[in-house]
Amino acid sequence: MKQGLKRGLFVGRFQPYHLGHHNAIISALKEMDEVLIVVGSAKQSHSMKNPFTCGERIEMISESLKQANVYAKCFIVPIEDMNENAMWVSKVISYSPKFSEVYTNNPLVKQLFEGRGLKVNKMISNEKHIDGKIIRKKMTTGENWKEFVPKVVAEYLEKINAIERLEAILTNEEKQ
Amino acid sequence: MKQGLKRGLFVGRFQPYHLGHHNAIISALKEMDEVLIVVGSAKQSHSMKNPFTCGERIEMISESLKQANVYAKCFIVPIEDMNENAMWVSKVISYSPKFSEVYTNNPLVKQLFEGRGLKVNKMISNEKHIDGKIIRKKMTTGENWKEFVPKVVAEYLEKINAIERLEAILTNEEKQ
Amino acid sequence: MKQGLKRGLFVGRFQPYHLGHHNAIISALKEMDEVLIVVGSAKQSHSMKNPFTCGERIEMISESLKQANVYAKCFIVPIEDMNENAMWVSKVISYSPKFSEVYTNNPLVKQLFEGRGLKVNKMISNEKHIDGKIIRKKMTTGENWKEFVPKVVAEYLEKINAIERLEAILTNEEKQ
Amino acid sequence: MKQGLKRGLFVGRFQPYHLGHHNAIISALKEMDEVLIVVGSAKQSHSMKNPFTCGERIEMISESLKQANVYAKCFIVPIEDMNENAMWVSKVISYSPKFSEVYTNNPLVKQLFEGRGLKVNKMISNEKHIDGKIIRKKMTTGENWKEFVPKVVAEYLEKINAIERLEAILTNEEKQ
Amino acid sequence: MKQGLKRGLFVGRFQPYHLGHHNAIISALKEMDEVLIVVGSAKQSHSMKNPFTCGERIEMISESLKQANVYAKCFIVPIEDMNENAMWVSKVISYSPKFSEVYTNNPLVKQLFEGRGLKVNKMISNEKHIDGKIIRKKMTTGENWKEFVPKVVAEYLEKINAIERLEAILTNEEKQ
Amino acid sequence: MKQGLKRGLFVGRFQPYHLGHHNAIISALKEMDEVLIVVGSAKQSHSMKNPFTCGERIEMISESLKQANVYAKCFIVPIEDMNENAMWVSKVISYSPKFSEVYTNNPLVKQLFEGRGLKVNKMISNEKHIDGKIIRKKMTTGENWKEFVPKVVAEYLEKINAIERLEAILTNEEKQ
Repeated sequence: MKQGLKRGLFVGRFQPYHLGHHNAIISALKEMDEVLIVVGSAKQSHSMKNPFTCGERIEMISESLKQANVYAKCFIVPIEDMNENAMWVSKVISYSPKFSEVYTNNPLVKQLFEGRGLKVNKMISNEKHIDGKIIRKKMTTGENWKEFVPKVVAEYLEKINAIERLEAILTNEEKQ
Repeated sequence: MKQGLKRGLFVGRFQPYHLGHHNAIISALKEMDEVLIVVGSAKQSHSMKNPFTCGERIEMISESLKQANVYAKCFIVPIEDMNENAMWVSKVISYSPKFSEVYTNNPLVKQLFEGRGLKVNKMISNEKHIDGKIIRKKMTTGENWKEFVPKVVAEYLEKINAIERLEAILTNEEKQ
Repeated sequence: MKQGLKRGLFVGRFQPYHLGHHNAIISALKEMDEVLIVVGSAKQSHSMKNPFTCGERIEMISESLKQANVYAKCFIVPIEDMNENAMWVSKVISYSPKFSEVYTNNPLVKQLFEGRGLKVNKMISNEKHIDGKIIRKKMTTGENWKEFVPKVVAEYLEKINAIERLEAILTNEEKQ
Repeated sequence: MKQGLKRGLFVGRFQPYHLGHHNAIISALKEMDEVLIVVGSAKQSHSMKNPFTCGERIEMISESLKQANVYAKCFIVPIEDMNENAMWVSKVISYSPKFSEVYTNNPLVKQLFEGRGLKVNKMISNEKHIDGKIIRKKMTTGENWKEFVPKVVAEYLEKINAIERLEAILTNEEKQ
Repeated sequence: MKQGLKRGLFVGRFQPYHLGHHNAIISALKEMDEVLIVVGSAKQSHSMKNPFTCGERIEMISESLKQANVYAKCFIVPIEDMNENAMWVSKVISYSPKFSEVYTNNPLVKQLFEGRGLKVNKMISNEKHIDGKIIRKKMTTGENWKEFVPKVVAEYLEKINAIERLEAILTNEEKQ
Repeated sequence: MKQGLKRGLFVGRFQPYHLGHHNAIISALKEMDEVLIVVGSAKQSHSMKNPFTCGERIEMISESLKQANVYAKCFIVPIEDMNENAMWVSKVISYSPKFSEVYTNNPLVKQLFEGRGLKVNKMISNEKHIDGKIIRKKMTTGENWKEFVPKVVAEYLEKINAIERLEAILTNEEKQ
C-alpha cells in the first residue's frame, strides 16, 4: 500500500449484490482512495441463504462497479468461510491487500477488528431497509425485487434464471 | 458475460508475480476483451514453494496491472487448493466469472479443461526462461532477481522484507 | 461402461433404507441395465437426521438387493458430503462408475445434473408416502415402522438395537 | 498410566465453566486418582452456543482447579469437533492420556463409550439445575449469573468483557 | 452380518487394479464367504501416485470381479483418506459392513487392526512381484504393462486414454 | 492472566519429549511464573515424523514435569496443524491461555510471533545436540536412545512397544 493511500474494507455475502451494498461503497469512496470488497462465504451456493456462486457474485459486483466507473478503485476478494470466528480477522488480513480501516455496522465484526487494532467506521447507506434475505424471499413469492438491486444486477439475475433456481432450492430445503 | 465478450483464464501461484506472467497477460489482452487471473494455492504462505500470502500476491499483481493500464480489464480471483484434482476445474468454474477460453502450457491442466469442453490456448511469453522457483532461489542466494519481475514488484518485495522471510523459511524447512 | 449399457443413478441418504427406495430401484431396473446407488452424507451418523453409519446403510441396502436377486446389477457408492453445492455433481461423477441417466424427484438435484448435460428421469414409486424422517420419528414414539422397510431391514435394525440408539440421540439433541 | 492408577474422563464445552462442572469434578476426585477434562468444540468461539475461545476456557478451568488445590491431579485436553460421531470416541482416546472410566449423564455418550468397552459412571453434582445455556442467556438479559460459576470465573469473565461480547454475538446472530 | 458368515477385509488404492490384487481376492474367497474391498485414497486422482478417480477404480474392480463370477460375494467400499492414522481403523469400521478378519501384509496396518482386536491374516498371492508403482511407471515408459492386470482392466485403461493422462501428470509433477 | 504474572510459550511436536525440551522448560521456569507447552501436529501419529499420538505425548510430558515437581506451573495445549502458516500464530493465541513471551530458536516462528507484537526469547538448553529426528532414527537401528530422554519417558516408550511401532511405520513408509 503506497504511503498515505487510504483503503477501506467492506465485508458481505452479496446474495445478491444490492443497492444497500452499492451505495455504501460509492459513499465510502468519497473518504477512501480504494475499497476492498470481501465476498464472504465464497464456497457456499445453491442454498436459500447463499443461492449464488462466488463467480456469479463477482460478476454482479464488478458489472455494477464498472457501470459506476469505480471498478479501477476496487478490489474484490472472495474468502471461504472458516469455522473459527476468533481467527476470521486473521484470515481477512492474510487474504486481502493491506487496508487501514473497516466499514461495518455489525457489533461483533467491529469488536473482532478493533481487537486487532484496526479503525472501524459506521457504514452509511440511504437504503437501510434493503436486505439480502428480504430480496431473496421476494424472488420466490413473485413480489417486486428489481428496484432494490442495480439495473445490471437485475438483468444478470434474469439471464441466469435466478428465480427458477431459488424455487428449486426452496422446495429442496423444505423437504429436508 | 455480455454477448460476444471474450474472456481468457490464466492460472498461477504468482510466487512472486514475474515478467513471464505479466507479458503473457498483456499479450493475451490483444486477443481477449478481459482476462481472469486465478491465484492458486491461495491459503498457502511462508513456505519455500509459496512464500507470499494471498493478499501480498494480489498487491503485486494489481499494482503491475495498474502500471500497465490494464487493471480495469482484469479480474483477480484467489482460489484455495483442493485435494481432488478431478474436481479442480469445477471449482475454478464455480469461483470465477464466466470465461470462454483458457491459457496454459501445462498438459494436465489442458486435459482437465478440455474434458469440460473448454477451448485451451498456448500461453505465449517471450520470457520462457523465467520461473518462480528459480527467482525464489536467487532471493536466498544473493543473486540478481529483480530483473525478472516488474519494477513495482521488486519495490514491493523489498518493502515487505521478502528476502529476510525467505531466509527464515529456508532455515525452518531445512531443519524439518 | 460397455457400449450400449444403460446405467441409472439414484441418490439417497437411506436413513434407513425403506420400501420407497427399494421399489423405485426395482422399478428402474426394468429400464436400466444397471443401477448406481449413491449413499449420501456417508460420514454422518448418530444424529436424528442420520442415525446409521455408512457401513450399516450398506448392510441394509445390499441385503435387500440380494433378497430381490438384483445385487449383481447394482453399485453402492458412499460419498461424503461436501460443503459446496455447485461442485457436488462433479463429486458424484468423479466417485461413481460412469452413468448415463439420473433418477430424482428433487428439482434442485435435477437442475444441477441437467446443468452438466445429463438426462434426468422422474423417480417412480408406489410408496410416495414413505419418508425416512417419518420412519425415524415412529421409531422413537413406539409406532409401527416395520411395514415401511424391507423385512431384512427391520430384522437388521432390531439386531443393532436401533431404537435404543435413536432414543439416546433424541435425548442428546434435545439437551443441546 | 501407572499400574493401578484410576483416571476418570469428563467431557464438556465449558461455555462457561460453572459450578455444575466444578462440583462434579471435585466429587469424582474422591473416587479417582486423576481426572481428564476434555474441552469439546475447541475451535468454536464467538457464537451464542460457544462464546469463549479454547484459551479462555482453559484459563477458567485451570484457575478454578488451582483455587481448589486439585490442578495437579487433572489434565485439560482441548479437542476440535469432528463431523463423524461414530469416530468421536476414537478421537478422544487418541488425544487423551489413557483413562479407565468415563463420567457422563448423556445416554448417547454413554452408548458410544460402552461400545468401546469402557466403564461409564453417572456424573454426580448437587447443582443439576445449573446449565451453560441458561447462564449465557442470563448474561445477555442482565439477570444474576455470577452465583452459578466459581468466583474466579466470574472475575475472569468481567475482566474480558464477556457481557459486551455476548451482546454483540446476539445482535449478529439475530440479524442472520 | 449373518450368524456364522465369514467376511474378510482387503485394503488397497488399486492404482490400477492388478493381478496381485485380483488373485489375492480370489484366493481369500476360498476361506471367506464374502470379501470387502476398501478403495483407499478415494478422493485422490490425476497424480502419479493416484492417477485414476474413485469411479474409474470401481469400474476396473467390478468388471474384473464380474468376469470371475465373484462380484455378488464382494463389497466395494471407497474411503477418503484421513490425516489421523490413529483413527483410520475406526473409519474403516464405520464405513464398512461388519467384517471379522483382515488380510494384509503391511505390518503397520496389522498393528492398527490388531489393536482393535481384529484377526489379521497374511495376504497370499502368487504375483508378489506385481506392484502398482511399477505398473504406473511402465505405462509412461512404453514398457509392457498389460500382462500385470486383468484383461478387462487393460482394455478399460486403453479406452480412457490412461497413458496420455499419465504422461500429462508426469510432465506436470516434474515441473513443480 | 493475573496482573504481573509472566507466562512463556514453548512450541514443539515432542516426538518424543526429550531432554532438550525438558531442560529448556526447566530453565525457562527460572524466568517465568508459568510455562505453556503447545503440542503441535496434535492429530498426527503413526508416521516416522510423528510416531506418537497426542495422548501419548501428553503422558510423556506430564509425567516428566511431575517428576521435576513443576507440573502445577505448566499448561499442556495440544493444537492441530493448520495449512495456513500466516494464521498459525492466531491459532496458538486463540487456543492458549494468555502468554506474554515466546521461547524459540526457529527464525520463522520468531518472525511470525514478532509480527504480532510478541516478545521472543532464545531457547536455552545444554543439550543442543538432542533432536527428535535423530532419536527416532536410533530407535529403529538399535542404537542407544534412552540417554536422550527423561527416565520416565524411556520407561513409557518401552511399555507401549514404541520400537515395534517405529519398525512397522518404517516398513510401511519405505513401501509407499
